[in-house]
Amino acid sequence: MRILGLDPGSRRTGYGVIEQRGGRLVALAQGHVQAPAREDLPRRLHAICTRIGEIITEHQPDVVAVEEAFYHESVRSTLVLGHVRGALLVQAVERGLDVVEYSPRTIKLAVAGTGAASKQQVEFMVRRLLGLRGALSTDAADGLAVAICHWNRAGRTHTRQAASAAAKGLAALLARRGVR
Amino acid sequence: MRILGLDPGSRRTGYGVIEQRGGRLVALAQGHVQAPAREDLPRRLHAICTRIGEIITEHQPDVVAVEEAFYHESVRSTLVLGHVRGALLVQAVERGLDVVEYSPRTIKLAVAGTGAASKQQVEFMVRRLLGLRGALSTDAADGLAVAICHWNRAGRTHTRQAASAAAKGLAALLARRGVR
Repeated sequence: MRILGLDPGSRRTGYGVIEQRGGRLVALAQGHVQAPAREDLPRRLHAICTRIGEIITEHQPDVVAVEEAFYHESVRSTLVLGHVRGALLVQAVERGLDVVEYSPRTIKLAVAGTGAASKQQVEFMVRRLLGLRGALSTDAADGLAVAICHWNRAGRTHTRQAASAAAKGLAALLARRGVR
Repeated sequence: MRILGLDPGSRRTGYGVIEQRGGRLVALAQGHVQAPAREDLPRRLHAICTRIGEIITEHQPDVVAVEEAFYHESVRSTLVLGHVRGALLVQAVERGLDVVEYSPRTIKLAVAGTGAASKQQVEFMVRRLLGLRGALSTDAADGLAVAICHWNRAGRTHTRQAASAAAKGLAALLARRGVR
């Protein structure tokens, strides 16, 4: 499963593509997109979508995990963030990708073990989990964190399903043996 | 010039396509799009964009005029409105259309002569200007009002350019006649 994680922001959108290879989790791409400030809003949004579209085309993720919006202190920033998210969500659906959303708290919990983790803690854990050494912007770390969160959650779901299937199998076995 | 007017909303998006034919302004299409409430946000946004995309394909407007976002009392509604606007703005740019935005006040002023016009006044003037008699939802009236606002504004710009060109032509004529 290849996952594109997105952390949309009113100024910058962080992204990260991850994949499990054997027992390791690797980052295939990471960075952030910043729209040209001089353009008007429609063209800024288009520039962000074009860049993320290129990343989707290049890395062909199976699923897009997106950080849920939180309410900024500024209503204006919240509104701009909404524009960026809306544009990106539609693009993912248009490309036939599954889209899942996670709250900032869930992401921090999945990556750093606590929903109250600082930016530094998240970045530290993202680096460790992916074995990253080079440059990593805060936005890129957040994008990778969303992807890791989905990998973690999806993994857990599979485990739960496997456990449930195992329990059912055991029950059937016991029933055949006359144990109720 | 064929104009698509859009009034994006967190619940419904009103639209209207208008065109000048001789001395008359006619509505080629009008209505509103409401996304299926049971779907998740990415799919709701996609449904809205798909419908507006169909209208663009069918009517081939030259320009898209969009009502600017105003801040709702609810931050949540403002955020959802941002998502809808962002998705629609990118779609218009992707199709190579010019996008212009107008504030609610500018639209009311252009259509009803006062920036403080009520919904009823706007609807009344939209009906009169376009000679509409049948059903017209409030959202559709708002979509048509944005389109009329752009037609009005663009017309004024042309008039100013024409006046400027006429003034230059006159100046050149006077110069040739030795009048300075």
